[in-house]
Amino acid sequence: MNKSVFHKLSYGVYVVSTWDEGRATGCVANSIMQITSDPATIAVSMNHNNYTHSCIEQTKKFAVSILSEQSDPSIIGTFGFQSGKEVNKFEQVEYELKEYMPVLKDCCGYIVCEVIDKLETNTHTVFLGRVVEGDLVNNEKEMTYNYYHKVVKGKSPKNAPTYIEEEATKEEIKEAKYVCGICGYVYDGEIPFEELPDDYVCPICKQPKRVFKKQ
Amino acid sequence: MNKSVFHKLSYGVYVVSTWDEGRATGCVANSIMQITSDPATIAVSMNHNNYTHSCIEQTKKFAVSILSEQSDPSIIGTFGFQSGKEVNKFEQVEYELKEYMPVLKDCCGYIVCEVIDKLETNTHTVFLGRVVEGDLVNNEKEMTYNYYHKVVKGKSPKNAPTYIEEEATKEEIKEAKYVCGICGYVYDGEIPFEELPDDYVCPICKQPKRVFKKQ
Repeated sequence: MNKSVFHKLSYGVYVVSTWDEGRATGCVANSIMQITSDPATIAVSMNHNNYTHSCIEQTKKFAVSILSEQSDPSIIGTFGFQSGKEVNKFEQVEYELKEYMPVLKDCCGYIVCEVIDKLETNTHTVFLGRVVEGDLVNNEKEMTYNYYHKVVKGKSPKNAPTYIEEEATKEEIKEAKYVCGICGYVYDGEIPFEELPDDYVCPICKQPKRVFKKQ
Repeated sequence: MNKSVFHKLSYGVYVVSTWDEGRATGCVANSIMQITSDPATIAVSMNHNNYTHSCIEQTKKFAVSILSEQSDPSIIGTFGFQSGKEVNKFEQVEYELKEYMPVLKDCCGYIVCEVIDKLETNTHTVFLGRVVEGDLVNNEKEMTYNYYHKVVKGKSPKNAPTYIEEEATKEEIKEAKYVCGICGYVYDGEIPFEELPDDYVCPICKQPKRVFKKQ
């Protein structure tokens, strides 16, 4: 089996959120899909080790904030590279309540669900959620996992179109790269990495300059 | 609830296939996601009314052919707009066997699974499949559902980039359009639709010229 075939499956980039005894919490997820249209239900796969997993087991409710290509990439750092057990992630972003659930303001749409069933595997739970509310927030294009890897992470966001960026990457790959040791972000600024100020932090996961590794 | 938010969820375009008493059959699916990595399992959502659904219930095995942006769009017509109960879909395409399952030659990768569990809803079954084999077929970019709607269906395939096409569509929308009454394909050829030969067929679903409607 060639596991790289799994990279050919297409996903979006979402923040799944719920409550942790009165405190909002959540994490980044990719494995979300609609299952039925009437009544509308969606399935979300979540790792057992994720703190959000145990919180959803408690509340039996969750929200999905759908990130757009214009969403601040630091959201992925905040919600994807920290644990809600240790950090109050929602302190670092603006959010509002939709059907009593915390939803990011910086998203292109949201869906709120009540858990009605689940499927267990050895590492993940697939939660089946009946949709109780959902709406568009703006007209921005939804972020795909592919876009996140190629544009946001591979190069700085909101610049040239994807295909041009890919070609540039191939040419530049022979030069030294500085890669964040936590989230894999490749530094791509105008200023040489060595000359960056000491308080520079990774734009994705907010970790300090010293965690970057030269490759 | 604003149901258009569901269009913001991202999907790929796949052909899910299995056996129907010794005859290969299958259908187009979008709702597929990886659930666990070790052992690798994926989830596939399938409508109860789909003939492929009852065949998977029998065989407890299925293959996923991952369509690429270069895959022949008529595959979507063959597998998405006909029933395997009435038509031998695999007679119309080239395929080969992988772990005894039928896989399209015109795809960028494939995954073969054994059903190990399922989750039932009123209209769909979510099959959980343990991956027994999978590989890349070529380096073509995987097709997303968004790409299918905007490039393949909205305009003729393999032409200008998506964004330019979208703007052109807005300008042309005031002119008369000819839309396939079966699959929704919008005719976009050089020759005026009225002047096409009588044996013209929809490039997506292969239906005859007469099923097109003027809008």
